[in-house]
Order: sequence, then C-alpha cells, then structure tokens
Amino acid sequence: MTKYFTEDESVDTVNGRMGIDADDRAAVVMESLVRHLHSFVKDVGITQAEWDLAIDFLTRTGQICGPERQEFILLSDTLGISMLVDAINHRRPTGATENTVVGPFHVEGAPIRRMGDDISLDGKGESCLFAGQVRDLDGHPIEGACVDVWSDNADGYYDVQQPDIQPRWNNRGRFITGADGRYLFRGIKPTAYPIPDDGPVGQMLDRIGRHPYRPAHMHFLVTADGYERLVTHTFVEGDSYLESDAVFGVKEVLIATYDRNSDGSGTAWSSQYDFVLTRGSS
Amino acid sequence: MTKYFTEDESVDTVNGRMGIDADDRAAVVMESLVRHLHSFVKDVGITQAEWDLAIDFLTRTGQICGPERQEFILLSDTLGISMLVDAINHRRPTGATENTVVGPFHVEGAPIRRMGDDISLDGKGESCLFAGQVRDLDGHPIEGACVDVWSDNADGYYDVQQPDIQPRWNNRGRFITGADGRYLFRGIKPTAYPIPDDGPVGQMLDRIGRHPYRPAHMHFLVTADGYERLVTHTFVEGDSYLESDAVFGVKEVLIATYDRNSDGSGTAWSSQYDFVLTRGSS
Ligand SMILES: [Fe+2]
Ligand SMILES: [Fe+2]
Repeated sequence: MTKYFTEDESVDTVNGRMGIDADDRAAVVMESLVRHLHSFVKDVGITQAEWDLAIDFLTRTGQICGPERQEFILLSDTLGISMLVDAINHRRPTGATENTVVGPFHVEGAPIRRMGDDISLDGKGESCLFAGQVRDLDGHPIEGACVDVWSDNADGYYDVQQPDIQPRWNNRGRFITGADGRYLFRGIKPTAYPIPDDGPVGQMLDRIGRHPYRPAHMHFLVTADGYERLVTHTFVEGDSYLESDAVFGVKEVLIATYDRNSDGSGTAWSSQYDFVLTRGSS
Repeated sequence: MTKYFTEDESVDTVNGRMGIDADDRAAVVMESLVRHLHSFVKDVGITQAEWDLAIDFLTRTGQICGPERQEFILLSDTLGISMLVDAINHRRPTGATENTVVGPFHVEGAPIRRMGDDISLDGKGESCLFAGQVRDLDGHPIEGACVDVWSDNADGYYDVQQPDIQPRWNNRGRFITGADGRYLFRGIKPTAYPIPDDGPVGQMLDRIGRHPYRPAHMHFLVTADGYERLVTHTFVEGDSYLESDAVFGVKEVLIATYDRNSDGSGTAWSSQYDFVLTRGSS
C-alpha cells in the first residue's frame, strides 16, 4: 500500500491511518463507512459540482435543525435508514409485535388517563374506539403495562406542531393495563400527513420523484417491567399511502382493521389491535 | 420485492420508490448511496445509540458551519473523499502536474504582483525563493498563465484566519507568466499546521487516533486560456507529516525540494517546481 493518496488505493490509504489508540468500535465503524462511501463515489463517478452540492445539502440540513425540527432524522427516515437501524436492533420471534420508527412527535409525560377516556380534545375528526390487549408470547395478559399513544388531529398536525391552535396533549395519553392486560380509549381515526417538506429533505424527495406523505397511523409505545420496549404504529387499512410511506414505516402486520360502528354508541369507528411483548429490559 | 419494509430487502424497497419523474442522474446517485449506506449499517450492525450519535454528529457538523468555517468539507477532507472526488475528475496523462485539494483558504482576487516580489508581508518566517516554469505537455512554455499562490505564515495561520493580526493578502499573490512561462517570487518556507480540530471533525479524529496536522505546503492555482485549471500544492520535502496528512493531500510527485541558499542573497531557501498543464477548458 502506498503511503500517499492514489485513486485505486484510496480506501486503504485512509483506513491505514487509523491510530493504534483508536477506539475499537469507532475504528470498525469508520473503516466500513470509508469503504462504502469511497465505493459510492467511485461507482457513480461523482463530479466536483455534485460533491459541492452534497456538501451544501448536508450543511443546509444541519442548519435547519432546531428545537422543533430534526432534518437529519428526516433524511435518515426518508432513505430507509431509520427503519433499517430499528430492524437490525429489534429482531423478534414470530408472534411478537413488530417495531417501527418512533418519529419526531413523541412527547414524554403525557397524562395518564382512565380506560375508555377520549384523547381527542379539539372536537375534530371521525371518532374511533381503540381497543386490544397487551400479552406475552405465551398469550398471558400483561398487567401494569403502559400504553402511550399519540396521533395527529383531523388536519394532519400533532399538537406540538400547533401549540397555539390545539389544546395541550390533544390526541395523546397513557393508559395502564389491569389484570386483563386490556386497553381501551377513544380518539379519532388518524389522518395521512406529509413530513415537513419545505427544507433540504423535501427538495431531495422532489428531485427523485417521491411524495412526502405518511399513511394514517396511531403511534403506540408499550412498556412493561421485564419486557422489551415496543415502539410501533398501527396503520389505517385502505390508506392510499400504505405502499408508499415516505419513511418506510409500514410493515404488513401493523396494518389494523377499522370497522364502522352501527351500534348507536356515537363512536364512528372501531379499531382493535393486540400487542405481544417479548421478555427483556425496557 | 415486498411493498413493505423488511430488513432483507431494505435497499430494493427504498430504491423501488423512486418516481418516474425522478431526475435521471439524481436517481442513479441516490440508488447507489442508499445501497452503500444500507450495506454499511448492516455490515457493522449499527446500534440505535450509535445512530443517534451519528445524527447528533451530523447536526453539530452542520451547525458549526459559518462564513469562516465549513466543517462538512473538513469531514469530506479527513475521510479522503475530497481527494477521491478530485482524483476521479482529474485523471491526467503522465507528465502533467497532479491536482490536490483546494482547501478552505483560497481567496479570489489576490493582488497581481511582479515577478520576484515578496508575498510575505509580516516579516515572519524563513525566506524562500519560489521559481519554476509553466509548460504544456510538449515542453513549450505557456505565456500569460496566472500563478495564484497562497500559504500560511510562520505561525501556521492564513491571513484570513487572523484578519486582526496579519496584513491583508499576507503570503498571497498572483503572477502572470511572460513568453518564457517562468514564475519567480519570494515568500516563506511554509509551516505544518493543524486543520481546525475544536469541532465535531476534531472529535472524530481523536476517537480514531488520528492527528489533525497537514504537512507544510505552498498552494498553487495555475490557469491559462485553453488549459485545464490546475489546483495543487507543493509540499516541503522532509516534513514529518508528509505520510500522515490529515486530509490525504500528498502525492509523491508534489513533494518539492527545498535547498538552503548560500549565495548571500539574503533568501534562506530556494524551491523550484515546474507545472505542466493539459489542454482543456479552465
Ligand atoms: Fe406520526
Ligand atoms: Fe493549506
């Protein structure tokens, strides 16, 4: 290997520079990153103008980030990397509920509500009853599980996106299961919405002919002592974006049924979904 | 291929989403990028905590950028990508002078000086006479070539890094060749210096056991009508960082001789280097 830079041996030249006091894991990660990035540049023959554009894109992506916006997570999401990282870190046995991306809109500390409570506080949208059971892999109900839920409102916005318009904790709540492991709450049938597309990621999507929409979904974070934390959504069956989720969050098993109620209860829809947790630490 | 996300088919799922109205080149570039980034994540089994760290790193890298600092170029430089992009876009015939990275310190519009002028305005450093010829591949001198040069001062800083301390245009100048294609100027023997290492890139280098230094070098941007623009440095022979340039800019043919003068001229060193341009557009 040459000591100096050559196009042919670029990877070895860079990786050969790793110091003897390098952090072991950092060295493994960086070696692979350098190898794959150099292959990418060589495979497509990136021009100087394109690389300048990439530098500018990355810079703008960093600079648009702030308390209310994380454009690099959005980039990771839209390239399927967030889902991939989630997948390789949450391989679960058959029968256990699958994870999906957490998304940027979870808020810690939502009010703990009573079973049956309505989380929709703005009076908008089609009412929906959400019900199901939290179980272990053997089918036993899990008592004391926390079912933390959040969704957008009928206009497609989470409360945190419209702090001046929506009531605080609109379409959010935590429910603690009893001995039967069951949860039950009222909310609204969620709405498809676009991820923020007025920044660099939106420009990238536009450039490669992709739309920014996510199919309608209800977020669930289910935790219980002694069980692996489950971060997932249930998706609304029939949504026209199910097969083109901008962030690739859909897994077939996470598509939930939504049934029209005709029981005169005043709740328009019912969606039933059970969660199966695996043993582990939260 | 499944319509929904799976770990095994993650690349095809993401790339299958490319729209029919995608820009052709953007589609090619993004397909390759997704393929290589997913391979990277899978090859090393990136954990969620590591990916969170990566997102944070990228965000801070973007946010530290400003008028005087481009941390993403620094990142590209330190991973050897800037040199690689330069290399694949400037493959030259044997005998032609090689390119290297432009670096962040070039300033357009340096004063045009007369041959023999001294570009060192702060009176610091060991004086050095720089001389050579600009030629074409057939050995003919190129008249009217612009030799734009810049270096750090004896303390290792470029004038733009110390606007309050160094005279404006210190160690910078442009020289226009006459019929003999020759250039000649006085400056100082350049000094090794660290790239800015108080940001995310410095932390990354530290993590993998690398130092931030560049071997001493004089920057040259040589342009002439009808010839390909040449962006290069000459490196000071014997510099202890020649084999570990933090940005991989060194090519063996760019190492220049520095000879001690004993002619009583008052100039301590002489460095002679000829530039051979290829036909093309600037
Ligand atoms: Fe969401
Ligand atoms: Fe430099």
